[in-house]
Formats: sequence, C-alpha cells, structure tokens
Amino acid sequence: MTAQMIDGKMVAQKIHEETAKETRLLREKYNLQPGLAVVLIGEDTASQIYVNMKGKLSKELGFFSDKIVLDKDVAMREVLHIVEKLNKDPRIHGILVQSPPPPQIDEEKVIEAIDYRKDVDCFNAINVGKMLIGKTDGFYPCTPYGVIKLLEYYNINPSGKHAVIIGRSNIVGKPLMALLVQKAMGADATVTVCHSRTVDMKHYTTQADILIAAIGKPEFVKADMVKSGAVVIDVGINRVKDDSSKTGYRLVGDVAFEEVSKKASFITPVPGGVGPMTIAMLMQNTIKACKLQNGIK
Amino acid sequence: MTAQMIDGKMVAQKIHEETAKETRLLREKYNLQPGLAVVLIGEDTASQIYVNMKGKLSKELGFFSDKIVLDKDVAMREVLHIVEKLNKDPRIHGILVQSPPPPQIDEEKVIEAIDYRKDVDCFNAINVGKMLIGKTDGFYPCTPYGVIKLLEYYNINPSGKHAVIIGRSNIVGKPLMALLVQKAMGADATVTVCHSRTVDMKHYTTQADILIAAIGKPEFVKADMVKSGAVVIDVGINRVKDDSSKTGYRLVGDVAFEEVSKKASFITPVPGGVGPMTIAMLMQNTIKACKLQNGIK
Repeated sequence: MTAQMIDGKMVAQKIHEETAKETRLLREKYNLQPGLAVVLIGEDTASQIYVNMKGKLSKELGFFSDKIVLDKDVAMREVLHIVEKLNKDPRIHGILVQSPPPPQIDEEKVIEAIDYRKDVDCFNAINVGKMLIGKTDGFYPCTPYGVIKLLEYYNINPSGKHAVIIGRSNIVGKPLMALLVQKAMGADATVTVCHSRTVDMKHYTTQADILIAAIGKPEFVKADMVKSGAVVIDVGINRVKDDSSKTGYRLVGDVAFEEVSKKASFITPVPGGVGPMTIAMLMQNTIKACKLQNGIK
Repeated sequence: MTAQMIDGKMVAQKIHEETAKETRLLREKYNLQPGLAVVLIGEDTASQIYVNMKGKLSKELGFFSDKIVLDKDVAMREVLHIVEKLNKDPRIHGILVQSPPPPQIDEEKVIEAIDYRKDVDCFNAINVGKMLIGKTDGFYPCTPYGVIKLLEYYNINPSGKHAVIIGRSNIVGKPLMALLVQKAMGADATVTVCHSRTVDMKHYTTQADILIAAIGKPEFVKADMVKSGAVVIDVGINRVKDDSSKTGYRLVGDVAFEEVSKKASFITPVPGGVGPMTIAMLMQNTIKACKLQNGIK
C-alpha cells in the first residue's frame, strides 16, 4: 500500500483563492479592505524572507499591507509605541511581530501589547483561552488551524477517531489538542498527547488513526511506530546536512517519509504539506479579524 | 487488593489550615486581608447553601467576606454595575457569581465583566489561556486544581504516566488535560481525553495509570474498565433514587466505587473525595489573587 499524498500546496492555493474572493466581496459590499501589518526587528535573513513573503502574498490577495522594519537596536518602548499605533489604525486588522526579536525586546510583552482583536497569530492568552473553551469569536493558531483544514479538505473526519499528537508546544501540540477535542464539526476526536516525558511512545503512536508529529526531531516517526492505514500529518521542518545538495542541507519532517508512506493511508510531505497552510490560515485569520472588527458575520 | 482511599476531606482541611496561616501572615507582614465577594441571584436553594458555605468558610479562614444577594428579577445592567463596583473595590480580591443565574442574566457576559485578576473561578478566557500556555500568574479552575493537589498529597507523580480523562467539560475535563500535559512539576503526563464520541471507551480507560472520571453519569466506570493498580479519581457527583434513604436519594460518583476499589491502587470516594477540594482551592486562589494584586510573591 502506498499512502495518498496530502497536497498542502494545492490546498493552500485553494484557500488563497477563497481569501482573494472574500476580499473582493468585502470591498464591493462594505468598501472594506483587510489590512495586515508585519513588524520586523533587525536583519535576520530568515525573518526577512518570511516577512517579505507575507507582505507579497497579502498584496496579491488584495489586502492593505504594512511592513514596518525596525533597527535591530530599537528600544522596547519604541516597539510598544508602534504596536499601540497599529492597534489604533483602522486600516490594520491583523498585527504580526516576526520572531525571534533581538534580546532587548521582551517578545511576550510585545505580544501582550497587541490588541487581542488583531492577534491573528493567536498568541494572546485571551484567544488561546477562547479556543480551549470552544468559542469561535477568537482566532486559532495558524499551523494547527491549517492541519484541521487539511483534514477537512481530504474528508478525513476526526470524529470518534483516535488522534495522537507528538509534541506539546504552545504553537502546535497544545492548540491541536484543544481544537481536536472540541465538541464540534471537524473535531470530536479522542485525543492523546505524547511528548518528551512519554514512556513507550510507540505504545501510543501505533494506536493512532490520525498521527500528528510536531516534535522537531528529524524523521523521528518510523514505520514501526505507525498503524497500518493511519493518517500521518507531519508538522516538523528540520534541516539535515546533505553534501549532495548545493545548499549543503535538505529539509525533512518529523516523519521518516519513505518508509511511513508505505504504511499510512494519507501522508503530508515535507516540504509542501503542512508548511504552506500556515500562511494560508494567517490570511484567513486576517479576513476574520476584518469582519469581526466591522461587525460583519 | 483493596485501594487506598484518597481522603479529600482531610486534604482539604490541611489546605484550609495552610490558607488560614497564609492569611495571618498577610495580615502581620503587609496589613492585608484577602477578600472574597460572592454574588447570589435569586432564591435557588442549592445556590444559597453553596454561597453560605463559602461565606462562612472564608470568614473562618480570616478573609474579608462580602455576600451580595440580588432579587431573582434583577436587571442585567444592575448585575454588571455591581460587578463593576466589586472590580474597583480594593478590599475584594476574588469575585464569584453563583451559577445558575436566572434567565434574564447572561452569565457569560457577567463572567467577562469580572476583572480577570479577580476571576478566582478561572472562567475568563485570559486565565484559561494562561493555563494552557503554561503561565503561572493566572488561576486554575478549582476542581481540576483540587485533583492535582490530591495527587500531589498522595505522592502520585503523573510524570510519564498515562492519564486518561473521561469528559471534556470546560470546568473539569479540558482544564485537567491542560494542567496534566504541561512540562511542569505535578504534571508531565501523557494525556488522553475521552468523551461521548469516543469509540470503545474501555480500550482507553484500561490503559490508564491515572483514570479521571468527569462525565456526569452515575457509576459509569466499572471494574472491567480499570487497569489493575490504577489510580482512580472520581469527579462526578450524581443523585440517584434511593428509597432506603430518608432524603429519597443518595450521592454516587461516576465510578462504581464498590467494585473498582477492589482493583485500583488509590481511589477517591464520593462524597468526601474531590468535592471538598473545590472550595479549598477557591480559597487558595483568593489568597493568590490578593498577593498578585498587591505585588507580593
């Protein structure tokens, strides 16, 4: 058996088209334009690439896009001042601060300073709490939300299934647990969360109907850890040394793709699986923010 | 084998003593008195009993205690006005609104109106979010927090153990999942959450090293659902008809105590198990609120 590939790039593209369409509708019907502000501090190359990607895409989708680049030596109070201005700016519905900021910047304080109604990353405790409680008027973190959308697209209904999550990070594992356990459409799974302290990981992973790896260890999930016919979602993105590549490295997930794809029913590749969904859900969150801030259902 | 009884009444008493001691210290060292306000709307007998119990205990522990009784026909704006006054009252560190309120009162809105720093029930999304993120400067819901304290008292360390929770309510199941999965002392469990949509419940419960029942079904957990030697925590309180009792009913938990106690290593009785811990943790939360609001570590 060979698993069906879950094509995150394709699904993300479909969601982008949906986002562009909703943006046009907001414009025509309400004369509104979703606005996303991205704050970049310092010159970290990877951060610059991400920020430029987000800026470019949001323009393509029809958003108002604001990119604020700050010197790496910028003072904390200056960052807070800028966040405050963005909070008040009616053109801006979503605010991102690109991680990681330089050491003089207290990232947690900056996140807390972002108006929770513009917290499209879902880092603010209010939005995290709303998600766990099951309220739908906040935001979901983009990567876990992307996983939920991938399952939905491929008609994989988690209801009554055993979803096993490897990893308990605040950006992936814990929110996925919160989302999948809800009494709701696209959820209703029996959920198990494994992590570094789990004894006998295989005992749990081999029970999974839906196995989600988000532990940040290259090719951690081997075929013998997977039940035959399981849906395997790989959230990991790891660089491993590869002399045959001109960059000197290649990207692998948390799943040993080759061997696991022979056993699973569905599998996400890395890259091109969960990765492209993150930015797609960010843009969807910005649309939602725009609607919420303008009282549109 | 017969399980050791987990004596929640005794542990709650120990915690009350600790609370009274901390209260004396706050008085002597900082001239502070923890203050708890309980708002009761209408004449529901059970609610009155709870409110009186909380008022009486908080006085015994040395707290400033404020009980506000409102007519069952009180208007929503009047309730919000009272909450606003309590939010501003420096004598009050914790605010409770006794459930369930009469139909004209939007309970969710009332809860949202309570200053999150005085939300000692941990109903506010901010405190729920802080709990899931793993921040320790909020509050934990009283019943799940009581379960954690019971385990701690009996030296049952969840680290690396498989904790299986039956039930996904916002006041017990989900917060317990959030607390037990944290990378922290008294947590670090591999956590599974089962619920009404779970297929083959027994498959999960028989794997549990720590089994927590919070599903609200009388004696739902039978001996054949429990692994030999498991720790069994019963959060349920159900009334069942009993003609031999002069009240016409008796209280039972979600666990078939008789048969399960022969198989478990530890078990909580109902009543006298988890029940008494809820109010103990409420008082502890009020102490914490008093400290936080006054910048005391």
